[in-house]
Amino acid sequence: MEKLSNIGSYLFLAEPFHCDFSKRLFIGHLGNHLLNAADYHSSERGYGMDYLNTINKTWVLSRLAIEMDEMPEMYTRFNVESWVDGVMKFFTSRNFKVIGEDGIVYGYGKSVWAMIDTETRQPTDIFAIRDGLIKEYVETEHECPIEKSSRVKMGGDAELVRTIPTYYNDVDINGHINSVKYIEHVMDLWDLDWYKAHRVKRFEIAYIAESHQGDNLSFYRSENAVTDGLTDFSVRITKTNSDGEEVEVCRSRILFK
Amino acid sequence: MEKLSNIGSYLFLAEPFHCDFSKRLFIGHLGNHLLNAADYHSSERGYGMDYLNTINKTWVLSRLAIEMDEMPEMYTRFNVESWVDGVMKFFTSRNFKVIGEDGIVYGYGKSVWAMIDTETRQPTDIFAIRDGLIKEYVETEHECPIEKSSRVKMGGDAELVRTIPTYYNDVDINGHINSVKYIEHVMDLWDLDWYKAHRVKRFEIAYIAESHQGDNLSFYRSENAVTDGLTDFSVRITKTNSDGEEVEVCRSRILFK
Repeated sequence: MEKLSNIGSYLFLAEPFHCDFSKRLFIGHLGNHLLNAADYHSSERGYGMDYLNTINKTWVLSRLAIEMDEMPEMYTRFNVESWVDGVMKFFTSRNFKVIGEDGIVYGYGKSVWAMIDTETRQPTDIFAIRDGLIKEYVETEHECPIEKSSRVKMGGDAELVRTIPTYYNDVDINGHINSVKYIEHVMDLWDLDWYKAHRVKRFEIAYIAESHQGDNLSFYRSENAVTDGLTDFSVRITKTNSDGEEVEVCRSRILFK
Repeated sequence: MEKLSNIGSYLFLAEPFHCDFSKRLFIGHLGNHLLNAADYHSSERGYGMDYLNTINKTWVLSRLAIEMDEMPEMYTRFNVESWVDGVMKFFTSRNFKVIGEDGIVYGYGKSVWAMIDTETRQPTDIFAIRDGLIKEYVETEHECPIEKSSRVKMGGDAELVRTIPTYYNDVDINGHINSVKYIEHVMDLWDLDWYKAHRVKRFEIAYIAESHQGDNLSFYRSENAVTDGLTDFSVRITKTNSDGEEVEVCRSRILFK
């Protein structure tokens, strides 16, 4: 079998019910497409979830950053390119490029993934999978000109904006709160009037701990100094379990223009 | 140009982040696929939203019923067939059949749609569109062996289960609460433990009035007598606007096995 190229490209459609009032794709649905592209890319190359699940391992998304010039409009077809640009024993970094069929570049993404053992929930050696097969697909030349996600700093003045329960539709195939749902819940901290005046330029999220249906999620928000002319917010998400214990589960940073 | 067949068929994939803890497609995402199939089918035949919007008209979903033997499993590719099986001046009825690539029939859907003028929000004559073009595509032979949705009866003892605010991600391209989000909010009235013991056999929803971001949605639920061995619930959704006025927006019925 001929070796596949390092870069996979997958076609998606900005479906009407996945678009917001401005008829452009919601960032949560874009995030879902990026995660699908990652899944298809790794499965086609032999180190995807489909194989990992047979040996009690799985990929876990640790960080995701998305930076968009604009969002695809309703009914637009666009490709998500994905490739691994670095791999270490416990982490890989994976890039994304979102391009219209007409060649327009909508934006880019960067992500960091860990591999864990599904029984112990502990990190596991990525190079042990198929004799380090993933190393054969590292691509460092393809351009992804956005900053990596860095540690999100929370101002001391972060304010509790909202606490919400978690329900059946929030839970993914692994029994945890779905990575995409956190993105949607973060974006819901701003109302429609805000989005009529602002567009997301950059969105970052770091996944710190897992939460489960029945946990309450609290969202703390602080506004940072304006960065390069962009309105800059940090958000901390915590879970409170039935014992009343509060634990940080995510941090996010959103830059609006 | 050759006339297209009456029945359109569209391929979808049960994406991993669209599946629940049991690794089967969420009913809300299935509903979204059905609505997409309706949209593609009508657009290809000249009476879709894309054309209607240019003449200030649009389709409005009035009722949807879905009856499933089983839900597609994660990564399964399946086709949604859609066709119009009846048309009157102000309403059309449209059917759906969900079939795996291997020919397995997962289930069926039935829907009723009105056409409205987007300026007056009043019903408009469907036969006035392209000289009644839609009549050329009515298909009455293709099988859809499930019951139409009927008027959902609410028991006098319907209990308020939950009141939730509506946010940015709930709002669709028309500025209203997204039809699919109501389905998700209804399904969220039961928790994960319930779904570990029960599967949805039939889901019905009737859309009565539109709601907007900022409205609070209240969910009233009553349990009916067991129907054909199925646990049978009715749900009424109301909106409460900023004046405190409460208006019914949807009714739904869910049969679990």
